[in-house]
Order: sequence, then structure tokens, then C-alpha cells
Amino acid sequence: MHGVVGATAFEMNGLYGVIAVALAALVYAAFLARQVFAWDKGTARMQEISDAISEGANAYLRRQFKAILSLIVFLTVALYLTAALANRELAVSLGRAAAFLMGSLFSATVGYLGMNMAVQGNVRVASAARTSFHDALRIAYRAGTVTGMLTDGLGLLGGTLIFILYGSNAPEVLLGFGFGGTLLALFMRVGGGIYTKAADVGADLVGKVEQGLPEDDPRNAAVIADLVGDNVGDCAGMAADIFESYEVTMVSAMILGLALTPAGAPIELRWIVFPLLVRGIGVVSSIIGTYAVSWWKVGEDAFKAMDLSYDLSSAFSTVSFGILAYFYVGDMRVFWSTAAGILLAIGFNKYTSYFTHPDRDPVRRIAQSAETGAATLLLRGLAVGLESSVWALLIIALTILASIVIYGSDPNPTFILYGVAMAGIGMLTHTGNNVSMDVFGPISDNAQGITEMADLDPRARQIMTDLDAVGNTTKAITKGIAIASAVLAAVSLFGSFITDTLVIQQEMVAAGQLALDQVVKVIDLADPRVFVGVLLGGAIPFLFSSLSILAVGRAAGLVVNEVRRQFHVPGVMEGTTKPDYAKVVDIVTTAAQRELLSLAIIAIFVPVGIGFLMGEWALGGFNAGIIVTGQLMAVFLSNTGGAWDNAKKIIEDGLFGGKGTPEHEASVVGDTVGDPLKDTAGPALNPMIKVVNMVSLLVLPVIVRYGGGGSIVAVVAGVACFAATGWAIWRSKQEEPLPPLEPKTRAA
Amino acid sequence: MHGVVGATAFEMNGLYGVIAVALAALVYAAFLARQVFAWDKGTARMQEISDAISEGANAYLRRQFKAILSLIVFLTVALYLTAALANRELAVSLGRAAAFLMGSLFSATVGYLGMNMAVQGNVRVASAARTSFHDALRIAYRAGTVTGMLTDGLGLLGGTLIFILYGSNAPEVLLGFGFGGTLLALFMRVGGGIYTKAADVGADLVGKVEQGLPEDDPRNAAVIADLVGDNVGDCAGMAADIFESYEVTMVSAMILGLALTPAGAPIELRWIVFPLLVRGIGVVSSIIGTYAVSWWKVGEDAFKAMDLSYDLSSAFSTVSFGILAYFYVGDMRVFWSTAAGILLAIGFNKYTSYFTHPDRDPVRRIAQSAETGAATLLLRGLAVGLESSVWALLIIALTILASIVIYGSDPNPTFILYGVAMAGIGMLTHTGNNVSMDVFGPISDNAQGITEMADLDPRARQIMTDLDAVGNTTKAITKGIAIASAVLAAVSLFGSFITDTLVIQQEMVAAGQLALDQVVKVIDLADPRVFVGVLLGGAIPFLFSSLSILAVGRAAGLVVNEVRRQFHVPGVMEGTTKPDYAKVVDIVTTAAQRELLSLAIIAIFVPVGIGFLMGEWALGGFNAGIIVTGQLMAVFLSNTGGAWDNAKKIIEDGLFGGKGTPEHEASVVGDTVGDPLKDTAGPALNPMIKVVNMVSLLVLPVIVRYGGGGSIVAVVAGVACFAATGWAIWRSKQEEPLPPLEPKTRAA
Repeated sequence: MHGVVGATAFEMNGLYGVIAVALAALVYAAFLARQVFAWDKGTARMQEISDAISEGANAYLRRQFKAILSLIVFLTVALYLTAALANRELAVSLGRAAAFLMGSLFSATVGYLGMNMAVQGNVRVASAARTSFHDALRIAYRAGTVTGMLTDGLGLLGGTLIFILYGSNAPEVLLGFGFGGTLLALFMRVGGGIYTKAADVGADLVGKVEQGLPEDDPRNAAVIADLVGDNVGDCAGMAADIFESYEVTMVSAMILGLALTPAGAPIELRWIVFPLLVRGIGVVSSIIGTYAVSWWKVGEDAFKAMDLSYDLSSAFSTVSFGILAYFYVGDMRVFWSTAAGILLAIGFNKYTSYFTHPDRDPVRRIAQSAETGAATLLLRGLAVGLESSVWALLIIALTILASIVIYGSDPNPTFILYGVAMAGIGMLTHTGNNVSMDVFGPISDNAQGITEMADLDPRARQIMTDLDAVGNTTKAITKGIAIASAVLAAVSLFGSFITDTLVIQQEMVAAGQLALDQVVKVIDLADPRVFVGVLLGGAIPFLFSSLSILAVGRAAGLVVNEVRRQFHVPGVMEGTTKPDYAKVVDIVTTAAQRELLSLAIIAIFVPVGIGFLMGEWALGGFNAGIIVTGQLMAVFLSNTGGAWDNAKKIIEDGLFGGKGTPEHEASVVGDTVGDPLKDTAGPALNPMIKVVNMVSLLVLPVIVRYGGGGSIVAVVAGVACFAATGWAIWRSKQEEPLPPLEPKTRAA
Repeated sequence: MHGVVGATAFEMNGLYGVIAVALAALVYAAFLARQVFAWDKGTARMQEISDAISEGANAYLRRQFKAILSLIVFLTVALYLTAALANRELAVSLGRAAAFLMGSLFSATVGYLGMNMAVQGNVRVASAARTSFHDALRIAYRAGTVTGMLTDGLGLLGGTLIFILYGSNAPEVLLGFGFGGTLLALFMRVGGGIYTKAADVGADLVGKVEQGLPEDDPRNAAVIADLVGDNVGDCAGMAADIFESYEVTMVSAMILGLALTPAGAPIELRWIVFPLLVRGIGVVSSIIGTYAVSWWKVGEDAFKAMDLSYDLSSAFSTVSFGILAYFYVGDMRVFWSTAAGILLAIGFNKYTSYFTHPDRDPVRRIAQSAETGAATLLLRGLAVGLESSVWALLIIALTILASIVIYGSDPNPTFILYGVAMAGIGMLTHTGNNVSMDVFGPISDNAQGITEMADLDPRARQIMTDLDAVGNTTKAITKGIAIASAVLAAVSLFGSFITDTLVIQQEMVAAGQLALDQVVKVIDLADPRVFVGVLLGGAIPFLFSSLSILAVGRAAGLVVNEVRRQFHVPGVMEGTTKPDYAKVVDIVTTAAQRELLSLAIIAIFVPVGIGFLMGEWALGGFNAGIIVTGQLMAVFLSNTGGAWDNAKKIIEDGLFGGKGTPEHEASVVGDTVGDPLKDTAGPALNPMIKVVNMVSLLVLPVIVRYGGGGSIVAVVAGVACFAATGWAIWRSKQEEPLPPLEPKTRAA
């Protein structure tokens, strides 16, 4: 450990100030949690439902944590080795392994506490809705803010502590911290995504489509699993996902900030301390903004209240960034970069809203095309989703171009990449607000389910229906932010990959392990190995999407069979016998677990295998490929599903036919197809892109030294990685054999 | 003009021999055409139907050629300028413009004659089916072979003539030839694809779904347009598409072959003459193979006969390539490259067949999932399609890796790219057989339609139903070959792009226009401009797919309305009044034309704009990006659609419910969604990838000199390109305004 060498008094005080802010965020979270817990839990029936949800959700997470425990232990050792094999100091190697554990633990904590907070919030929100719109809104939002502040607080605390302890070695250790968070997020996203949609699709297919029951009907055995799914998917999954983007942008900003100093010169700390201070300011802004939500005089327009709070936070942050950049850094370019990030967040909000909002043309056209049946509705939705991915990419490309414009005249080209990382930092400034708004979604969704199942009075149900609609919008917006920030984080990691490779090569030259003329400074696309790397990287998101869609379909099939079976149990259909909710919860839990390992193996072993067999630059190409198609597919899948969902909603609101018409039936097909796209496959791609880029950075020192197929050991290691991948794919695709089909005579 | 300097007598004789073979292919085509025309055209009713199809198809192509005429004239001038501005000799500049016209003309001719041959063949095949299975098969296949031989003959003739005339300058001129073919193919593919699917989807939506009429029922006003569509889409479009891959692989093999010679040394002709001789051998093999189809004693197994012929051609070619490589080139590596190409073709056949064949697991699982409704069937199909795109990419990546293994030890890295181009040459060796098998598809499809509409006896109808099923398989296989060859061609073009840039930089250094230290030899992915180029390139296939799917949906809507209107005309439903077929043909023709210009503008202007604003290496990144997502999307779209189509077929054959069940209804939704994916959006991506890479090569000399945003002129030109693109997208998306919707109060 080195500590922060050469820091000014202002810088050290600033860093301790950031620690204080992080702790304040955690205290604020505890304070809000107390407020939520103080509320009444409603009737016995409500509490019974809530307990069932809580039990299912916790059973799921416990099983999940148990399932991944052995992998975490294995990876802790592996992380130690990635540093030790690259001749890092013992403190750094151990620190990386410990930070990995800490990152996993923090991410799991954010997910676990956030989810429990949501589960505890649900029933209290439903209870409050019996008397007051404003109380219901306030509790729902505050319960969400607890998770938001946990994300902020733990992310900032971990990152800053590691920096204070390790100084210029911090990035090496932070990589472990970031990877822990990213990996857990992948598990939460994939597992939660499969869980939530298998339950949802299964419940809808039998309940709504076959039996004509309304949503959340208590006779449907899958209804509790569906409500649990909202918590483990939308709440735990999303919180973990954003938590890791928050960490990863910090890690890459530090790596790139360090790379700004030419080799041998004393490190310019301002490039590294500035992002941490920016984060600290962001947390303060979020505390102010989130607390202000209940102050605005906007009647019952819940969305406007949150939006105004967001604006307040943005204004406070932007001014503070400017002052800090001018007086502390003495370079306004870092201000422009972070401001570009804030603008990007706003731009992405507007853009996502255009393509998925029920009042805008794209969704209305989809609904209109239901007039000629499900097929035309589906085609229109695919066209809208594909187009929306193009504009999202354009916004990201413009952000990178902005960085080129801001830093292009600097003789040091690394500044451009640093600028991209700072835009990522800027974009995630208001993570507190974003997560609060997001978690608000599943909380109101669940609370609405509880009002239905506990048969509360119509006024309470109307309040919750309205809040649920707002929740759909805020969820969609956060999804956009999550994707955009994942891409910026991945691009920054990609930048770190390049600068790290150069640093490692220099070390090797200094140690006499590499001749100076063997140093390759560029990822040359004209090198066929790099090109093949890009191709293979591009394919991974397609593979991931395929496997996760398949998993949902398969698990939903199991749910359908079980619910059908229970409908035949005497008394269930009549509502006199309670169906066996736990059985369905158990089925979905098992199904979701099964995929975790397979998908994690693909994300971890393919990059390692490529590095061992084809070398570091092919691996660079691989990372670039995965960013390109990963972003396009993530947005395409999310927005297509979102647009179909809302097309169904406006038809249910009475447009283009209304409920019960063939148009409505067509829109239900679209919504069902869209569910796993928008809530499983699409969101799983965010952490996946980052896991792959993170793994590449971690193994890079080993790959540069021993990779590229240059030795028998490298070839064996590479082949073993691909064998493991093949096994994972095979395993993931296992299913019941097809029933024997009558022999057919068919030409060819 | 230079002619072939330094050729040996063997080489000159070989080249003249190739010309003779090309002419022989054309004579063979004429001979087969005579055989087909000699057959009887059947009853008056059959001839009447056939005439209607012929009229519609020709009206469409005439309108198409007229619509693009002005663009062709503009581009001829532009092509002259791309060479003249780069200081090429007058003969080369004029030659390039003339070759462009020739390429367009040849491609149009292949499409036009091929389509007319198919239209003439249809009715004769139907007529033959009244008496004999074998006669019907022979005529259908021979009519297809006419197109196959036209493709071979014209492609080889043009390429070889230009090489004999221009010698080492040939690639500069061949670029024009290739671009002409590619551009026409894009028009044929896009226009034909929209036409065929708008008619098909429209006809099915009203006819089958709304009114419960069988396929090809004469009371359906869209039925003739549907039959015309098979000819203009599957036949003219596919023929033009493969024609241009055939040309483009030749062009890039020559560019890379020339680049193998170090600057200043005398050109090693063998690297350029060998691909032409290989092509000549391929044509001879195809003539032997295609003529042999009716010799095999395989009963009524039509597919087996074609397959055996393909094996015969492959065996003849492989042996000849080996002899040629050993005795003439004196380097067996070129043999391994071409053999890898032939293997790739075989591998792709097997792979496509696995994912889309009705008897294999993926399609059966899709059909099975119809048991829980359309949504699960759609999800399963998406998962299958996504997965299949991964394996396709892996096969291509292995082909490139094979080239790395074969040539990796050579000190000249350009050999690896040359190896990729030679694999492309090898893969398209049996273009004659492939096109014959492909065109066989729409011919039997149409002939079957005629037997239905003319109400022929059951035996004839059964024969045509069987042949139609074989046609579906051969069509799917050719689609796989077309995509794989497009990707290899594009990768070769990308390789040419790199070597060309280096050559141009050398020219500029020699002319004192560029300082030696300004020469950049690599496409560095670490350069953010290159990275942004890759991102933008990756987005283009998504944009293209979105616009073409939208176009089909919109045009299908118009067809639905028109057919509905005609059903209300007294007598039409009763079958006593003939519906107005021509009206529907006209609607689809107009709709298809509308998109041509927009999509062509995107494919041509975006690369030029990127070059002008961001320079040649960003353009290189753009090309790489478009190859990655273009290939993935093309395969995903084609195979998803194909698998849904066949899932419907096996349900109609009685599995998982059979005709008329909810399962069948679900599978019809899948098939309808899949139609524009597999026959419009997917196939349009092949020529699109190549057009973009081709345009980049053409403008490259201008970009290297004046691009990269370095001057006001470059910036203005770049911005103008993007403005044109924006206009094209806007234009393509215009549609009727939405009906006024009642005002809604909806939160946020």
C-alpha cells in the first residue's frame, strides 16, 4: 500500500469530505427506511400477501447467493493470481482479491436490502393508498430512495477508501472491486430477469389468455411468483446493475486519469481526485433532490414532482462542477465533459420517452397496426425497436465525438478517452435520483397487486393504478440511462484496456522480457486476428440473447403446466381453496438458477480463451465488437418490448378497439413476446458487456506475457476456456426430449 | 490501357480459354432456353394466368429500371470523377465509368432474362406436371440453369475482358464493373423484396386469415401480385445478388493479388490469373453438373439429384484446382484456400439446413411451442434465429482463421487477406449450380400456383406440391450461400481498402503531397474516430432492416385495403367476376419503387460523408462495423423467418395439432412476421454490405487526399452527405397521418 503520495491539503480534505458524504448517504438511507417502517401495514389479508411475497423473494435471493458462492471463492483466488502472475506486490494482489469480495458483497447488499425495502414498502404503500394519494407517493418514493442512497453511498465509500489506501496503485485494486460488483449484477440481472418474466409470461398465458382471469387474480397459482419477480428483477437486478456502472466509470476514470501522466513524471492527482469530488457533489445533490420530491406543489402529478427534483439536483451539480473545475483543476475541459454526461442523460430520457411513450407516434402506430392482426403489430414493433437502437447509438457516438472536439487539440490522445470516462461520471451523477425513480416502479406495481388481491376500495385501487402508470415511465427512463451508462463505462474500460496494454509492454521492456521493436501500440483492424476478434465479440450478445430468451420460454412452459394442474384442484377455480403459490415460486427459482452458471461461464471464459489463443489485440477487437452489437441489441430488445407493452396499454385504454377486441388480443401477443426481450435479454446485456471488458482488463497482464497462442500452455488454456464455453452452451440448452413424432415421408 | 504485360504464352492462352468458356456458358444457356421454350404451354386458362404474371413482372422491372435511370447517369459521371480527381489516366477514368454501365447492364440483364425465363418456365412446368414428374423436374431445373449460366457467363466475360484490356490497371476499372452489379443487385433485392412480401403478406392477411380462402385462390385480387412477387424477388433479386458476389470476389482477389507484389518489382501475374482460371474451371464443372441432373437414377427424389450433381461439380473442380495450383502456380497454398471455400459452401449448406429444416430439432421445437400460443412460438423462433447467426459467424471466422493458418508464416501479411478472397472465389465456384437450384424454387412455386388456379387434376397438383417443397429447401440453402459469400466478399473488399490506402499514400508521398511521417499504416481501434466509425457502421444494418420492414408493412396494408374493397364488388366472392389483379400489381409496384432511392442514398452517402468528415481510417472502421452486424442481422433475419415458415409447414402436415387448430393459427402469425424478415430485410443486407464497402473503395483516393474534415470543402461535402441521408430517412418514413385520437388524460 502506498497511500496518496503528493496530495495537497485541499485534496486530502476533499477526499475525507467525500468519505463523509458517502457515510451521510448511508445515514440518510437509514433515516428514510425508519420513516417507511413507521407506516401501518394494513389489514391481515394485506400482510399475508406481503409476507408471501417477502418469503418468495428472500428464498430466491438466498438460493441465488448459495448457487454462486463456489464461483465467488474460485474467482477470488483467480483474481489474486491475475495480479500475482503479473508480478504485482503482495499487498496489491491480496487487495485486489479482497476488493473483489467487497465489491460482490456491496452489490449483493444493495440488491438484498433494496429488494427487502421494496417488499416492506409495497404493503405500506397499498395501506397508505387507502387514505391519501400523497402519502402513497411519498412512501413509495422514499422506499425507492433508500436503495438509491445505498447505491451511491456504498459505491463512493468503497472507491474512495481504496484510493486513499492505495494511491497510484488504486486502479489495480479497484478493478477487483468493480469486477465483484459487475459479476453480481450479471447474476442479479440474468437470474432476476428470467425469474420475473417466466413468472409473468406463465401467469399471463394460463390466467389471462386461457382462463380469461384478470391480472393479479388470487386464484392464479403464479400470481405471487409474478409479484416476487417484480422485486427480484426490476428492483434487485436494476439496483445492482446501476451500482456497478457507478463503480466501473469510477475505475476507468482513475485508470485513464493515471495514464494522463507521462511515464516517470510525478502523478497529477487532480485528474483522479476530480472524479471523486464530482461523485461526492452528486450524492449531496441527490440527497437534496430526493428529499424535495414531496415539497413541490404539483397536485397529483407524481412524475412532474420527480422530474422537478431531478432538475434541482442537476442545477446544483452543474454549478458546483463548474466552480470545482475552475478553481481546483484549473481546466474547464473537465467541466465540459461532465456537463456533456449530464446532457447525455437528459437526451437519453427524451429519446427513450419518444420511442416508448404511449402518447407518441411510434407506439400509436404499433397499436394502430393491430387492426390487421398480431403479425403486423409485431412487425411494426420490430421496425420501431430497430430504428430506436440506431438513434441511441448516434447519441452515444455524439458524446464520444464531443470528447474528440473538447480534447482533440491536446497533444496527449489519452485525454479523449479520459473525456469519455468523465462523461460517464457526469451521466451517473444523479444515480441516487435515478435508482429512486426506478425502484418506485416495482414498488407501485406490487402495491397495486396487493390492492387487487386484498380487494381494497376503488379509490385506493385507482390511486395505485395511476402511480403504477408513472412507475412504468420512470422504469423505462432508468432502463435507458442504465444502457447508455453501461456503454460509456464499457468504452472507458476499452480505453483503459489500451493504455494498460502499453503500460504492461513498457514494464516488460524495462524488465528485459520484451524487445523494444516487439512493442505493438495499436489495435490494427487490418490485422485479421483483430478482425476475427471483432466478429466473435459481435456474436456474443446474439448468443446471450438467444440463451436467455430460450430460458424464459422454457421456464414459462413449466409454470403454465403447474398452474393448469392447480386449476384442476377442486376449489381453486371457485376461490374457496388457496392455490399452492410456493410451488410456482420454487419452479421459477430453480429455473432461473440453472442459467446463471452457464451465462457467467460464457462471459468470463470466452475473453480469456481469445486472449490465450489470439493475443491481447484480438482481445481488444473482441471487446470492441461486443460493445457495438451489445449496445444495439440491448436498446433494440428493451425498446421493442417497451413499445409493445405500451401499445397494449393504449388499446386497453380504449383506442383502436379497446379491451376484448381482436386488436387487444393482437396486442397481448406483442406484449408477451416483448416481456423477455425488454426485461430479461436486453437488461442482461448491460452487465455482460462490462463483465467481458472487466475480465479482459484483469487478465491482460497475464495475456500480454503468456497469451497469443505462443506456447503450449497458452494453447491448452485457451482451448480449455472454449471447451468450458461449449459445455456451458450445451448445458444451457438441455431440455426435455421432444415427444416421438410419427414418421414422415417428406422430400429432402 | 496497358494490356497484360509480362504474361507467358500459357497465361495468355489460359485467359483466352476463359473467355471461350464464358461464351460457352452463354451458348449453353441459349441451348437450354430453347429446350424449355419447345414445351407446350398448356390450356388456355393456364396461358391466361401465365400471361398475367408475365405482364405484371415485366411492368414491375420496366418501372424499376426507369426509376433508377437518372441515378445511374449521375453515378456514371461520379465514377468518372472518383478516378479523375485521383489523377488516374483518362483511359482508366473513362473505363471505370464505362465498366460501371456494363456492370449495371449485365446485372440487370441477368435479372431480366432470368425472371422472364422463370415466367416462361412456370407454365410449361405446370403443363408438364400433367403427364410426368420427371419432365416437370427437368424443365424447372433447366429453366433455372439458364439464369445460372447467364450469371456465370456474363460475370466471367466482363471480368476477364477488362483484365485483358487493362492489365495491372484492371482493378481500378473492375471496381466500376463490380459497383454497377452491386448497385443493381441492391435495387433488385430491396425492390423485389418489398414487392414480393407486401403482396404475400397482404394476400394472406385478407385471403387466408380474414376470409379463410386457400392459398392462390383466384378470387383473391392479390394472388397474381403474389405470384409476380416470387419472380421479381426470389428470382431476379437473388440472381442479381449472386451475380455481384461473383464479380466482387473477383475484383478483390485481383486487387489483393496485385498488392502481393512489392512496390517497384515486376508484377507476379500468377496471383491474378489463377483466380480467373479457377472461375473458368468452375463454369465447366457447372455445365457438366447441371446437365447431369436428369441422369441420376434416384426415383422421384429431386433434391438428391441436384445434390449428386453438386458433388460431381465439386469433385471435378477440386481435382482441377489442385493440378492448376501445383503445375501452374507452384504454390499449394492457393489450392488450400480455394478448397477451404468449397468446404465453407458445404458447411454452410449443412448448417442452414440444421436450423431451418422441418425434420430437425430447432424447427420442431418452434412448432411444439405453438401449443402455448403465438407468443411462445415467436419467442422460440427468435431464440433459434439469434443462435443460428452465432454459428454462421463462427464458420466465417474459422474460414478467416484458416487463411491465417495457411499464410501466417509468410512474411507478407497481405497473403492472409488474399487467402480470404480466394476462399470467396472457391465458395462461388459453383455459382451455376447454386443459381439453378435457387431459381428452381420460385419456378416450382409459381407452377404450383398455376396448377391451383387453373384447377388441374390432383396428380399434377401433387407433383407440383412435392417439387415446391424441394424448392423451399434449395432456396434456403442458396440464401445461406449468398450471405456467406457476401460476407467473404465484403471482408476481401475491406482488405482491398487497407492495401489501397497504403498504395495511395505511397503515390502521394512520391508526388510530394504527403510527408513520410504523416503516413498512417493501421486502422487503430484505439483511435476514437475509428471506434465511432465502427459504432456507426454497426448501426446501419439496423436502420436498413427497420426501414425495409416498415415498407413491407405499409405496402401490405394498402394491399389489404384494396383486396377488402374488391371482395365487396358483386360477383368476386362468388367467383363469377374476375377481380382486378392489375390494380394490386400496380399498388405493390409503386410502393416498392418508393423505397429504392432512400435506401440507395443511405448506402451511398453515409460512407462518403464519414470519409469527408472523419477521414479514411474512420471509414475503414465503418466498413468493419457494417460487416459485423450486417452478417449477424442478415443470418438472424433469414433463418428466423425460414424456421417459422417451416414450423408452419410441419403443423400443416399434421404435427402438433394440424391445420385449423389454434396451433396452426399461431404458426401462421409466425410465418407472416417472418416473411419480410427472411425475404426483404435479411437478403437486402447482402448487397448493402457490399455497396458500402465498394463505395468506400471508389471514393478512397479522393478521401485520402481531401477528406477527414481538413478543409471547408470536405466539411461541406460531408455535411451535405448526411443531410441527404437525413432526407432519405425522413422520406422513407412518410405515411398517412394517424387518425385523430380522442384526447386522453394519462399521467406523464
